[in-house]
Amino acid sequence: MPDLRLVIGNQRYSSWSLRPWLALAHHEVPFEEVVIPLYGPGSKEAILRHSPAGKVPVLRDGDLTVWDTLAILEYLAERFPEWSLWPRDPARRALARSVSAEMHSGFAALRDVLPMDVLAREPDRPRTPATEADIARITTIWRQCREASAAEGPFLFGGFTAADCMYAPVVFRFDRYGVPLDPACRAYVDTMLALPAMQRWVEAARAEPWVLTF
Amino acid sequence: MPDLRLVIGNQRYSSWSLRPWLALAHHEVPFEEVVIPLYGPGSKEAILRHSPAGKVPVLRDGDLTVWDTLAILEYLAERFPEWSLWPRDPARRALARSVSAEMHSGFAALRDVLPMDVLAREPDRPRTPATEADIARITTIWRQCREASAAEGPFLFGGFTAADCMYAPVVFRFDRYGVPLDPACRAYVDTMLALPAMQRWVEAARAEPWVLTF
Repeated sequence: MPDLRLVIGNQRYSSWSLRPWLALAHHEVPFEEVVIPLYGPGSKEAILRHSPAGKVPVLRDGDLTVWDTLAILEYLAERFPEWSLWPRDPARRALARSVSAEMHSGFAALRDVLPMDVLAREPDRPRTPATEADIARITTIWRQCREASAAEGPFLFGGFTAADCMYAPVVFRFDRYGVPLDPACRAYVDTMLALPAMQRWVEAARAEPWVLTF
Repeated sequence: MPDLRLVIGNQRYSSWSLRPWLALAHHEVPFEEVVIPLYGPGSKEAILRHSPAGKVPVLRDGDLTVWDTLAILEYLAERFPEWSLWPRDPARRALARSVSAEMHSGFAALRDVLPMDVLAREPDRPRTPATEADIARITTIWRQCREASAAEGPFLFGGFTAADCMYAPVVFRFDRYGVPLDPACRAYVDTMLALPAMQRWVEAARAEPWVLTF
């Protein structure tokens, strides 16, 4: 039994769950996965058994409970320093945390209009001006990050970091809803979609109805 | 001219701005303060001159721009390790980040119904069931944090940390709107309200209409 246990929502829809899951799965660390279907009868009670905040994702590490996506990623960054979940340079680390925290608290219009559904194929879904503004802001972030780190690797800050985890749900949204992308952003989306861990997440979504462990 | 510059919204209403401001002011580090009135003509454009995300608060440190509250607090925690903005123990640090990230992304009902107005005195403002649920969750967090750290100091994790900064706007909300509190939570509110930096923030709100520097 691994020390680490991650409680997540169903893979098809749970954008928040994807983020810390991806950090663990990308680095192939053993962890127990508990899937709780969202929006069903008893969902809330099931989640509350794992987390006082009543939300997924939740990480257990032995006796310690860590919740809320950014706190889990910070915890993993400290527990597995060899992963370099944040860039080693302090200024670039500050930028990675800035774009990650901006995603943590913002982009409501994108969430409302283009909800994450990793099995969707709906390029004609209408987008509102507020959603377009969110898309423009995100693609600007991606372009600036990629320009500054192009020589170091294909991710937002060169190597794979927590910032990529934070934007992974947007990768699925842009791809599934056919959002027009410039070549730099398209290349980033393709890099992320090609990750074995991202493909495993989609396979898990396809394998639903869910085999549940709660 | 200090190296640090913090761009904030007007003190009366800008709950997000209060958080990193409090970290800086409590520790009496010199910093330049730029106040941009929110919700006015030209507000958005004024903020965009300082931050690509178009939101306050924004921290400048020399050439580096750091934005979004949690990222700024993480940056200050690294830049001023002597402040111990996060608890030194890894497990308690993970808890402090959990309750901070939960505040960063949640409690929408509280924000909607009891917006921060540090000059308000409105104990009879009606509260919705969703707001009561948010209040119950926050007071549970506070009680648990205080029970675990009572011997070490009067703040959520004993000494003053980023978690106190994150919950500072709630301190004003609970006090100004007369939210009933048990003795432990009342004591915490009183501890926070007595901080010289918190009092300076209120004085700045009282001194509006704003002298602006944009």
